Amino acid sequence: MVEDTMSGTETRTAEADQKRALIINQAARLFDERGYGNTNMTDIARAGGIAKPTLYHYFRSKDEILMQIHEEFVAILLSKHEERRQQNLSARAELLELMADVVTLLDTHRGHVRVFFEHARELPAEEQRVIRRKRDQFRANVIETLQRGIKNGEFTPTLDPKLAAWGIVGMVNWTYQWYVQDAKYSSREIAERFYTMVVNGIGVPDHREV
Amino acid sequence: MVEDTMSGTETRTAEADQKRALIINQAARLFDERGYGNTNMTDIARAGGIAKPTLYHYFRSKDEILMQIHEEFVAILLSKHEERRQQNLSARAELLELMADVVTLLDTHRGHVRVFFEHARELPAEEQRVIRRKRDQFRANVIETLQRGIKNGEFTPTLDPKLAAWGIVGMVNWTYQWYVQDAKYSSREIAERFYTMVVNGIGVPDHREV
Repeated sequence: MVEDTMSGTETRTAEADQKRALIINQAARLFDERGYGNTNMTDIARAGGIAKPTLYHYFRSKDEILMQIHEEFVAILLSKHEERRQQNLSARAELLELMADVVTLLDTHRGHVRVFFEHARELPAEEQRVIRRKRDQFRANVIETLQRGIKNGEFTPTLDPKLAAWGIVGMVNWTYQWYVQDAKYSSREIAERFYTMVVNGIGVPDHREV
Repeated sequence: MVEDTMSGTETRTAEADQKRALIINQAARLFDERGYGNTNMTDIARAGGIAKPTLYHYFRSKDEILMQIHEEFVAILLSKHEERRQQNLSARAELLELMADVVTLLDTHRGHVRVFFEHARELPAEEQRVIRRKRDQFRANVIETLQRGIKNGEFTPTLDPKLAAWGIVGMVNWTYQWYVQDAKYSSREIAERFYTMVVNGIGVPDHREV
């Protein structure tokens, strides 16, 4: 009987988690389409097909939904990197995967990404700090990969890894502004071409500048 | 007498323009600091040291101020390129200047840049179209420069100029997210290092991948 009660609780928790995930996805889509400022709790409830009091049962405020969107997106991004740790990739291969992690997320989490980049500053100061720490972790992973590549001769020793990381992060992050699914290149191909551009350069070697 | 009246009008117009410019700058700063959604016309009037009715005399709405911020920023960006036309720069030199145009603007128009990138979608549809056309013009200038460089042997022929332009635009546009004045690198140095990274690549040539 105790076990029955427990699994009943678990079922209810799972249902609640599922409901929360659904609301977050609908909210992310709305924020993406109309902007965060133009979306209110009534819109989110309507999109989720639930009553407004039900929505408030799951999330106290729009800020809480926004925070949850950030958490989800960053967690996915960082866990992909963690999962690769065992593979002992070269710094180049690792860099490619890090770039692909961001761009391919657009296929599944477009709304999350836009909200993540454009509305973090609308969160309360304490929550911004939490978000920023995790966001910085992604860039730290890129820096670490560049440093490793410089050390083992894959990347040029004149590189400033911190500045280069900003450039690379900028290239891949900016894709949310223009990426269209099912267009000329897949998200993976975009990452691969950007990677090639960054590693090999776009200059013709004969004209290589000093 | 007629002339006096005319110059009186001109003075008044110049004063009005100056007042409008001041309001725009204050508004851009506020939007940058607090977010567009968190700033209202009362805040803007207060920051500009004017009464709210006076503010409404110059701008009918926050949207109109946002639109004006966009117009200003894009106009500066595109005119810099136009002014260089006579110089007959190499495609490489032109690319460097285009990259520097964006990054160096952060020294003078930081608030404008953030607002430009993050809040264009909050404008009415018709105004978004106007903005987008001009914004696309900047990228078109980058594409044109890359195409010229491919044709004359400065850039590698395997390059897709449209995709490469997105990568380059992303690198320089993203700087508004992290650039700090008077830090390790000036805005010009950042542009130069990003340019070097893109043209020469970060890979050590011996390890160059096929």
